[in-house]
Amino acid sequence: MPRLRLALAQSNPLVGDLAGNSEQIVRAAREAAAQGADILVTGEMAITGYPIEDLAQRPAFLRASVEAVHTLAARLQNDGLGELVVVVGHPDGPHEPRLLGTSNAPTAIAQNCASVLHRGQVVARYAKHHLPNYSVFDEYRIFIPGEELLVLRLRGVDLAVIVCEDLWRDGGPVGRVLESDAGVLLVLNASPFERDKDEVRLPLVTRRATETDTIVAYVNIVGGQDDLVFDGDSVVVDGQGTILARAPPFEEHLLVVDVDAEPATDTPLPPAVQRVEIAAVDDATVDARTELADDIATLPDDLEQLWNALVLGLRDYIVKNGFRSVVLGLSGGIDSSVCAAIAADAIGAENVHGVSMPSRWSSDHSRSDADDLAERLGLPYSVEPIADLVAPFDEQLKLEGLAAENVQARVRGVILMGLSNLQGHLVLTTGNKTELAVGYSTIYGDSVGGFAPIKDVPKMLVWELARWRNEHAAARGETEPIPANSIEKPPSAELRPGQVDQDSLPPYEVLDAVLEHYVGAQRGVAEIVELGFDEAMVRRIAQLVDRAEWKRRQGAIGPKISSIAFGRDRRLPITARPLA
Amino acid sequence: MPRLRLALAQSNPLVGDLAGNSEQIVRAAREAAAQGADILVTGEMAITGYPIEDLAQRPAFLRASVEAVHTLAARLQNDGLGELVVVVGHPDGPHEPRLLGTSNAPTAIAQNCASVLHRGQVVARYAKHHLPNYSVFDEYRIFIPGEELLVLRLRGVDLAVIVCEDLWRDGGPVGRVLESDAGVLLVLNASPFERDKDEVRLPLVTRRATETDTIVAYVNIVGGQDDLVFDGDSVVVDGQGTILARAPPFEEHLLVVDVDAEPATDTPLPPAVQRVEIAAVDDATVDARTELADDIATLPDDLEQLWNALVLGLRDYIVKNGFRSVVLGLSGGIDSSVCAAIAADAIGAENVHGVSMPSRWSSDHSRSDADDLAERLGLPYSVEPIADLVAPFDEQLKLEGLAAENVQARVRGVILMGLSNLQGHLVLTTGNKTELAVGYSTIYGDSVGGFAPIKDVPKMLVWELARWRNEHAAARGETEPIPANSIEKPPSAELRPGQVDQDSLPPYEVLDAVLEHYVGAQRGVAEIVELGFDEAMVRRIAQLVDRAEWKRRQGAIGPKISSIAFGRDRRLPITARPLA
Repeated sequence: MPRLRLALAQSNPLVGDLAGNSEQIVRAAREAAAQGADILVTGEMAITGYPIEDLAQRPAFLRASVEAVHTLAARLQNDGLGELVVVVGHPDGPHEPRLLGTSNAPTAIAQNCASVLHRGQVVARYAKHHLPNYSVFDEYRIFIPGEELLVLRLRGVDLAVIVCEDLWRDGGPVGRVLESDAGVLLVLNASPFERDKDEVRLPLVTRRATETDTIVAYVNIVGGQDDLVFDGDSVVVDGQGTILARAPPFEEHLLVVDVDAEPATDTPLPPAVQRVEIAAVDDATVDARTELADDIATLPDDLEQLWNALVLGLRDYIVKNGFRSVVLGLSGGIDSSVCAAIAADAIGAENVHGVSMPSRWSSDHSRSDADDLAERLGLPYSVEPIADLVAPFDEQLKLEGLAAENVQARVRGVILMGLSNLQGHLVLTTGNKTELAVGYSTIYGDSVGGFAPIKDVPKMLVWELARWRNEHAAARGETEPIPANSIEKPPSAELRPGQVDQDSLPPYEVLDAVLEHYVGAQRGVAEIVELGFDEAMVRRIAQLVDRAEWKRRQGAIGPKISSIAFGRDRRLPITARPLA
Repeated sequence: MPRLRLALAQSNPLVGDLAGNSEQIVRAAREAAAQGADILVTGEMAITGYPIEDLAQRPAFLRASVEAVHTLAARLQNDGLGELVVVVGHPDGPHEPRLLGTSNAPTAIAQNCASVLHRGQVVARYAKHHLPNYSVFDEYRIFIPGEELLVLRLRGVDLAVIVCEDLWRDGGPVGRVLESDAGVLLVLNASPFERDKDEVRLPLVTRRATETDTIVAYVNIVGGQDDLVFDGDSVVVDGQGTILARAPPFEEHLLVVDVDAEPATDTPLPPAVQRVEIAAVDDATVDARTELADDIATLPDDLEQLWNALVLGLRDYIVKNGFRSVVLGLSGGIDSSVCAAIAADAIGAENVHGVSMPSRWSSDHSRSDADDLAERLGLPYSVEPIADLVAPFDEQLKLEGLAAENVQARVRGVILMGLSNLQGHLVLTTGNKTELAVGYSTIYGDSVGGFAPIKDVPKMLVWELARWRNEHAAARGETEPIPANSIEKPPSAELRPGQVDQDSLPPYEVLDAVLEHYVGAQRGVAEIVELGFDEAMVRRIAQLVDRAEWKRRQGAIGPKISSIAFGRDRRLPITARPLA
């Protein structure tokens, strides 16, 4: 069987940075060529990053993207890399608008494409057929589906090219390309991380490979992009379901692997499949290749994956937006401690500025636990008591009750934003998913910030992650970053004397369970009650969730790690009576 | 030709309020029956309100919606209204999920339907074929398209039933139902207002009517729902393009009209069209009907339409969310003055609480113009100087420059939120579209609030609306609500001595023009420069717009009045290099 050397570029693009993203691909091509690869494949939309959202509706952006592909082809040729076949993901357009809707509304003018570059030219192009329009995806809004299928013939092997969602749907293009007897299926992906997604994705790739006896090369981008974290986890599986190569997740990687593929046959092509013959390197060059070492990463455990996703999501938000440092309030509680530890892992503790902002209701331990955390992590740390800032509001406005509690949180927000304005830090907001769900936070107070590192982490999981991070440190002989007291003490907002969260909320293990049903599984109140929860409590939780929608809508973004995160994953009206 | 009496219920539903929305339909049915109507048609999704967004993915919500339709049918029968044929819009489901995507992501399980109720039963159902998935619409995300078409035969006339987007597309269901020779086309709509939309919508209805010689009865819902304002403007047009009836926009209305329709023929039905025969009232009842007066509203002028849309959008947000009053900061400037006037028109001046919050940089006129406004409108009004609240921050944090400017705005935000917490008012934020576009505002400062009445109104249009409102008052012999000085003086944020907006921004007429190209028309920088604008300026404006995305994402919602409003209309990444 013909042997091909495949290279998969697990790159980390930044949306819209055509020059920088192209440079990543050139670097990958140089390394792939040095290793003697026949073909290099990037992730979906590697030229522009993903998702480009409504940038796909701007003709100028599309023209620039297509030009970047041609520039890349020329550049590779000029750099002596023209013999390497490069399959690169990018948007194509502008095309004639697909829809005839209301005359004023912009509609899709782009396609989600993979172009094949060789010897300085774009020699073939494939447009994605199946456009995901669920969860975080809005592709039916911005893309026109493709009609034609593409098979490349390279050194006696047929390689079919598809994009992401095409692989997930039964029937359709995948069925047709497999009828064409391709020996290799190249899949360009931008598939975001979520918990346990590896338990769905790898079995899918394996199933496609085995059910058709085809080698599947699955390339995913990596990196944080706003609320999404792409985990990479690119993989090559053969027709027996054996993993031939797998890239380490959460980092850039060039995965190079030899595959022995079924030789191409002269079976007539099914309709709408285009086959493009590509002249390739001679056998002498191929024979001169040195042997490759195995490159098969193993995935870390569940909690380590989650931690790495949170770290990468935060790091890339910081770096890609041009920040160098962050500031956050340290209350001594578990949420701010975990956020600080994530931030320290992301950009180095020296760039994470912690501020303790004790009030007259703050316990001694809130201050001492914050001190302890800062020392363990080695953070720049300051203390800004709020009493003298809060008192003038209370006096002038005669505040009491909830209004007085909230002013404390809002004064803290003003402090953090002031320090950000003075020193250029990104402000992190430390709310967890449980708080966000039930609105247990002060808007314009503790919700202040540009990024929310644990926005999609329920409270119980925050504790789990804290314990995991400490154990991980201990196992490596390092200082445990999170004070044991922050993990063990009962959580409290400390906005009045002796307050603890459990005064006004059900126990977190129950609350998180109900929220998983109501938010995660979209079950109704009656259905949840049938599962054995107290009706009055479920009803109250559902009402809290519904009523907090306006606050969530004004909240910072943060990395999605669950199957339904707050944000574009869960689109609900503010004005509504949705209890059902 | 057979004469039918049609009734169109231009109702104002609240999303999810199944009981309340059904009650609106019962009231309309009672009035329609009293006027001897043969058939009553509601707007799209009148049972649930529109848009229901991801509520469509909750099986329990769908079951409750379908049950509400059956309950409505029984209720009409029990109330002696069973003879009236009622066509009502609602979601139907749960169905088998349409998509086989990633296993964890919820996909569409609902259809967007019109059910026909008669004598206590649901006698027919139509599911919308064309699902808009552009602009503010996400219907492909949440609905499964219908396959069958529906024609009702009632008193010798065939009436085809379609839903909203079905009317807009050439070919498809509309073509097929017209082949079926229907005499009347009933269209259930939830079509949101935007400026000049009447110049697209009525011509479309007229074109469909004349090109097929069919009477078109177009029913639209009315009311504010989060960021959308449904204007109603329900209309009946005959096959010659003559308007037979038209409901007044921006208010609930029952439009009743007699139409002389082509009699039904025995032409064989095209495939996939279901015809349902409906037993109807006897001729004696019909003959006993009294004559109807003409009911043909004329649309107000452009600026009055805009004003009414803003008033309705704000009123419904307040009322539907259970607020009774609002609070807003009055700076003496044009934006807060216009917002106060809109609020006074929406819920009565006595429920609009104005707060002047002068700083040490505030001009005398800022205070006196705010006083003047409050007096003209008759608002409850208070003054909260901020100097004593700001000084402690400046001292403790050693703030200067931008940081010190922003603290003033943020202290005002804390005051407004404190008053809201104490007194239960909804906080209005008064930023206009131009400010939002370029980020000329302080996040967590002047952006604080639950609703932004002029969020989609560019600065130049704010002035136009202010002048229009004053002229409108003068023409009716009323006090002009907005002080002339607020309209005429140069705008300033007054965060430092002598500051005016034009120190840091291009003149508003130029800025708004560039923004219309960059944001409204999605043109690239080079394209805008070709239109004759200075390149450095365009580049700077585009950069300001791009960099303010994170702030906009955390902003309050406000009524959409343009073809591209900030919000779900314009989905862009925060992390990006989109200048192209």
